[in-house]
Amino acid sequence: VGLDTDPSQLPESICRSAAGVTAFNSAIIRATSDIVCAYKPNAAFYEAMGSSGIDSLSRIRAMIPGDIPLILDVKRGDIGNTADRYAAFAYDVIGDAVTVNPYMGFDAVKPFMRPGKGVFILCLTSNHSSSDFQMLESDGEPLFLRVARAAASWAGEGEIGLVVGATKPEHMKRIREVAGNVPILVPGVGAQGGDVEAVIANCGKNPGETVINSSRSIIYASPGEDFASAARSACLSLRDEINRARRDGK
Amino acid sequence: VGLDTDPSQLPESICRSAAGVTAFNSAIIRATSDIVCAYKPNAAFYEAMGSSGIDSLSRIRAMIPGDIPLILDVKRGDIGNTADRYAAFAYDVIGDAVTVNPYMGFDAVKPFMRPGKGVFILCLTSNHSSSDFQMLESDGEPLFLRVARAAASWAGEGEIGLVVGATKPEHMKRIREVAGNVPILVPGVGAQGGDVEAVIANCGKNPGETVINSSRSIIYASPGEDFASAARSACLSLRDEINRARRDGK
Repeated sequence: VGLDTDPSQLPESICRSAAGVTAFNSAIIRATSDIVCAYKPNAAFYEAMGSSGIDSLSRIRAMIPGDIPLILDVKRGDIGNTADRYAAFAYDVIGDAVTVNPYMGFDAVKPFMRPGKGVFILCLTSNHSSSDFQMLESDGEPLFLRVARAAASWAGEGEIGLVVGATKPEHMKRIREVAGNVPILVPGVGAQGGDVEAVIANCGKNPGETVINSSRSIIYASPGEDFASAARSACLSLRDEINRARRDGK
Repeated sequence: VGLDTDPSQLPESICRSAAGVTAFNSAIIRATSDIVCAYKPNAAFYEAMGSSGIDSLSRIRAMIPGDIPLILDVKRGDIGNTADRYAAFAYDVIGDAVTVNPYMGFDAVKPFMRPGKGVFILCLTSNHSSSDFQMLESDGEPLFLRVARAAASWAGEGEIGLVVGATKPEHMKRIREVAGNVPILVPGVGAQGGDVEAVIANCGKNPGETVINSSRSIIYASPGEDFASAARSACLSLRDEINRARRDGK
């Protein structure tokens, strides 16, 4: 479940502040924690609120049961000494795993590879402009496949995964082929229109192969005061859809 | 001047906390603000301190004279609705310009293009692993050049610049050729070993063409209590070196 909580989208009874965001997330977590494999807050929504947003993020960490990983979606990428500072924030303050951007190469990823922590590297994203650069071919392979191949080769040095948008199932199969059995984090199911069955068929149905994220279609399943129970229903129905695809799919 | 202030590097008399970082930066800014064109804090160093670090960043904003732009080095890149949240943080809370990562393409950059604000797009970075992907050739051109060309074509929709590491002067000339007259932000002079003369010769010597950043070699010019006056001396000597290269260079 993606905790991309925007104060402007909160139900009427909840204050449009960092405290409101914390309360909203608390209700979402209580309503869903027995049926999710991970929570993924996108740091942008918290940073937009300044220091109180960062406090809110720490509070969310404390609310999530210890056996459920928190994937902090930060998409960072910076040179060594700076990446190390981002890693300090991401892990010491908040998360069990992060998302990172591969543009700067391995030495910008390595500081995030710490024992017991996971690093999901952006590979093929779900947005329209992903084709601007990710699709550029060199030596007969698009950039996103080069990234997948490189990431798989880095996996010996730590826990590596890939981020592949749900909206690109036609490319998932090739990514899975070059990336071995690294976990693939798949955002873009729900509001962005990705298809669960195609994702499972191409990314893999075994435990640890595919982590499907849905944010808006779960946390905003109802705009009203029943948002938490609506989120639980949306979450259950996505879970069932995933498990159906795992059972019945090719 | 890059305000990449690490609490562990502060002089003995200054407390290793967010308040200490704020006090240190305040002294650096007072000692240098009449001779710099911009300040560039890297967000990582502040985020690593959690919410008190974000407060410190806001305080730095307030200390910098209004006519000196603050370039917030965040290297963000995310899909539209999320990028919009990062832009809210970067501009409303803090800066006049930001750095962004091009991997996700134009629609991840566009939300940062706001009136009166500047966006520096990572093109060719100064770290060793920059060659992992930035050098991959497609249609006879390395990725970094494709990024430069694309960025120049986006410049009609807002204020665009490029980030090109000082350690790669051999490629700067080609970047300048395809990018027209967009400003090029050049980190990597000083601690990372870039050569000012080569930078100016290749990036351009006219006002607005080249913004050279130096962080560690200025703010940590002295480890002792004379850090502010040492920073001023280091800053003056870099300024003179830049102006000499502009005057005498090819």
